[in-house]
Amino acid sequence: MTRLTADNINQHVVAAKYAVRGELAVKSEEYRAKIASGNADDLPFKQVISANIGNPQQLDQKPITFFRQVASLLENPQLLEQEDALINSFGYKTDVIDRAKFLLSKIGSVGAYSASTGVPAIRDSVAKFLERRDGYPADPSKIYLSAGASSGVNTLLHVICAAPNTGILIPIPQYPLYTATLSLINATCVPYLLDEAKDWGTDLETIRSSYEKAKADGVDVRCIVIINPGNPTGASLPEEDIRAVLDFAAQENLVVMADEVYQTNVFVGKFHSFKAVLRRMQEETPGKYDAVELASLHSVSKGMVGECGHRGGYFELVGFDSEVEANIYKFVSIMLCAPVIGQCLVELMVNPPQEGSPSYELYKKEYDGIFEGLRERANALHKAFEQMEGVECGVPQGSMYLFPTINLPAKASEAAAAEGRTADEFYCMQLLESTGICVVPGSGFGQKEGTLHFRTTFLAPGTEWVGSITKFHQEFLDKYR
Amino acid sequence: MTRLTADNINQHVVAAKYAVRGELAVKSEEYRAKIASGNADDLPFKQVISANIGNPQQLDQKPITFFRQVASLLENPQLLEQEDALINSFGYKTDVIDRAKFLLSKIGSVGAYSASTGVPAIRDSVAKFLERRDGYPADPSKIYLSAGASSGVNTLLHVICAAPNTGILIPIPQYPLYTATLSLINATCVPYLLDEAKDWGTDLETIRSSYEKAKADGVDVRCIVIINPGNPTGASLPEEDIRAVLDFAAQENLVVMADEVYQTNVFVGKFHSFKAVLRRMQEETPGKYDAVELASLHSVSKGMVGECGHRGGYFELVGFDSEVEANIYKFVSIMLCAPVIGQCLVELMVNPPQEGSPSYELYKKEYDGIFEGLRERANALHKAFEQMEGVECGVPQGSMYLFPTINLPAKASEAAAAEGRTADEFYCMQLLESTGICVVPGSGFGQKEGTLHFRTTFLAPGTEWVGSITKFHQEFLDKYR
Repeated sequence: MTRLTADNINQHVVAAKYAVRGELAVKSEEYRAKIASGNADDLPFKQVISANIGNPQQLDQKPITFFRQVASLLENPQLLEQEDALINSFGYKTDVIDRAKFLLSKIGSVGAYSASTGVPAIRDSVAKFLERRDGYPADPSKIYLSAGASSGVNTLLHVICAAPNTGILIPIPQYPLYTATLSLINATCVPYLLDEAKDWGTDLETIRSSYEKAKADGVDVRCIVIINPGNPTGASLPEEDIRAVLDFAAQENLVVMADEVYQTNVFVGKFHSFKAVLRRMQEETPGKYDAVELASLHSVSKGMVGECGHRGGYFELVGFDSEVEANIYKFVSIMLCAPVIGQCLVELMVNPPQEGSPSYELYKKEYDGIFEGLRERANALHKAFEQMEGVECGVPQGSMYLFPTINLPAKASEAAAAEGRTADEFYCMQLLESTGICVVPGSGFGQKEGTLHFRTTFLAPGTEWVGSITKFHQEFLDKYR
Repeated sequence: MTRLTADNINQHVVAAKYAVRGELAVKSEEYRAKIASGNADDLPFKQVISANIGNPQQLDQKPITFFRQVASLLENPQLLEQEDALINSFGYKTDVIDRAKFLLSKIGSVGAYSASTGVPAIRDSVAKFLERRDGYPADPSKIYLSAGASSGVNTLLHVICAAPNTGILIPIPQYPLYTATLSLINATCVPYLLDEAKDWGTDLETIRSSYEKAKADGVDVRCIVIINPGNPTGASLPEEDIRAVLDFAAQENLVVMADEVYQTNVFVGKFHSFKAVLRRMQEETPGKYDAVELASLHSVSKGMVGECGHRGGYFELVGFDSEVEANIYKFVSIMLCAPVIGQCLVELMVNPPQEGSPSYELYKKEYDGIFEGLRERANALHKAFEQMEGVECGVPQGSMYLFPTINLPAKASEAAAAEGRTADEFYCMQLLESTGICVVPGSGFGQKEGTLHFRTTFLAPGTEWVGSITKFHQEFLDKYR
């Protein structure tokens, strides 16, 4: 053996790409450190804005008080010995105290490993939430708590993919966790394009033709991934699109993996869960859809919760074979369990204060405030994009992102090529270097050939940064026109 | 495609074995649920004792007050607005408040994703700890915060293993995370036996002969894993053993992966870190050991901290190629970051209250109390094993486990075979069914052919359960004699 080098380590790791935390993100962190150290007089900006990642609490978003009050008691149950002081000095409500006591009675200590698939009482709570949300029963034994949805995706793809020719249908553009994980496990990404002209919806003919082509190439296509609401697109799928996907999955025996982490981030229309739509289809046409295998994922990182750093999430399985479930159990057990305080945040997310309970008013105010703030920022950013030359961007529908098309001059493409970059990478790098704003080039998510985009969150507060993008864009066009 | 079945999913997942959370653990949880539901009159025991897993806070161990007080403030920074009440009503000391403020100033919110490799200030704190511990510089940029040590092992093995014939030297007996992960990534386990006759130490001739044999079989051996103090063995390696391994690794260009999560659980002798020993060897013989690649891992789950549920840990790289490091960065970035509150517990573990600070006295009392409690329980259990017929067990040296040899009658092996079990599995299953005590058969860790063992933690309080084992053992022998 020689020492480890990039040439002899796992080439699937070398091949994987994850732009959300790639070169631009690393450079932005260097700028941030430089500014923090006070030696940044040579930079043309005073702060870094991380619009590259849906990380609400890194920017302006305050955590929801109820969640964090309960978490503080879970971390230090000794606080519960002085309930009066909690109430009088710190304004903790009785439902905060009751919830903490309930969770502690079920968990013991948040410092203990839980069962591999999560604390049973929390899985029960998730099941009850799903029943309320969908109007159909949910089985706690089919719910697996995970370290964010990312870890759930990792688990499911690892179990499903059996060989290099196992194919997974992935929307393009997509959140690059999917393609990166498929690279790592050496399986085949079968891309299907979303339709920008139809608000980034799914088009069944496109899906079918990607599927047929892959099949003809010898790919064993096993699963279709849908991200709804979309990342990076923000699209919120209409029920017809979901029905079409489920019907196709039933025909072709495909597992449906529904990434629904943005289910509460919906500005236009309404969120339809794959589970509810599947159950309706099963009722309407008895027998036809009974065999559909559905895995749906959710997370505490998004929505109005925004607790990314706590790494909490879950997935629910519907229609899976019990031996397959046993292997999923084994896979997750090797990493022992999801972070227990993150599991507790899942419980709080799915079972928040209800009308009439002491914490409800503040919870509602905070929740609605975050929702409205996101909508306003999305709209302000969208308005700016509408006025920028060569930029096209649909109305904000949901999630935390806008994904505008940018039409760049040929000279910009040439300058990019001279640096060995794609034109969108080049644009985003120049944006970062000029303004301190970090976004992700469309090539990091995949985009239709001949088109260019970038993804930006609309989480950053204020409007100054939007003005910086507008100004940069005009200067960029003028330079390369 | 057909539906997913155990026959068509990833066969590497199907092949993986992880006994710590396997059949026995699942059955013990069923018993626990049955007891909790009040319908357990037919069981011959009143409680389940999970001695199968090093999970201190599930049993008796109280978290360290300083850690949890700080964590409560990190979860709810609004508490910091009433410092007087924190101090007067809840007994928080000023160093608790100061630490929370310091961490919040570096992190922002524990609900935000951190940098992929962890919060920079926490990596600095880990580096300072390593410098104090070892007497040699440590570079924060080589420290990667992880979701427990398990996640670090997963990362490192994924990056190192390039092909099915990549071989990793694994001690037998071992913590099954290693073999399970090698199964999942389809690489080759190259087992080397630890020497039970020498307190489960490493024997270089044994390692060399395993290595040579694998090499002759076409295996590309790249790495040697050492667990010190040992799991499941409890062995605390003398410096000579560590030197021999490092010298061998230097000769053969093997990466050394040092799993040092039990570094403070040492009852006999003293913990020698691989890093410190390597640096000494590099000083003594300039040039000879400069190329050694060492990855050493630590965790908040063990020691006197015992915060398993928080999933905190780190690994430090020494001597790795920078492009390999870049790929490790990319791999961890795909899962975004380790749980941030777990990262904070890493900081608290490596930078606890110092003599003279307000929280020191209580911290020291709690820490020493846990240490002594573990030692006493280990000794009590060991004493019981010494008196049991056909049981051989070395003096407790460290970690949280005893791993006695059990000599069982031939009739027991026949009864086991009739059930399709190994004799140690059979024994452990009967122990669980008779007493509610869950331990793990030696076959779950690997053991020398012709020997039988089980692993038990010595975390459970009281002596009653020890008596139950003794009684069960005698009855088992009498039955199958």
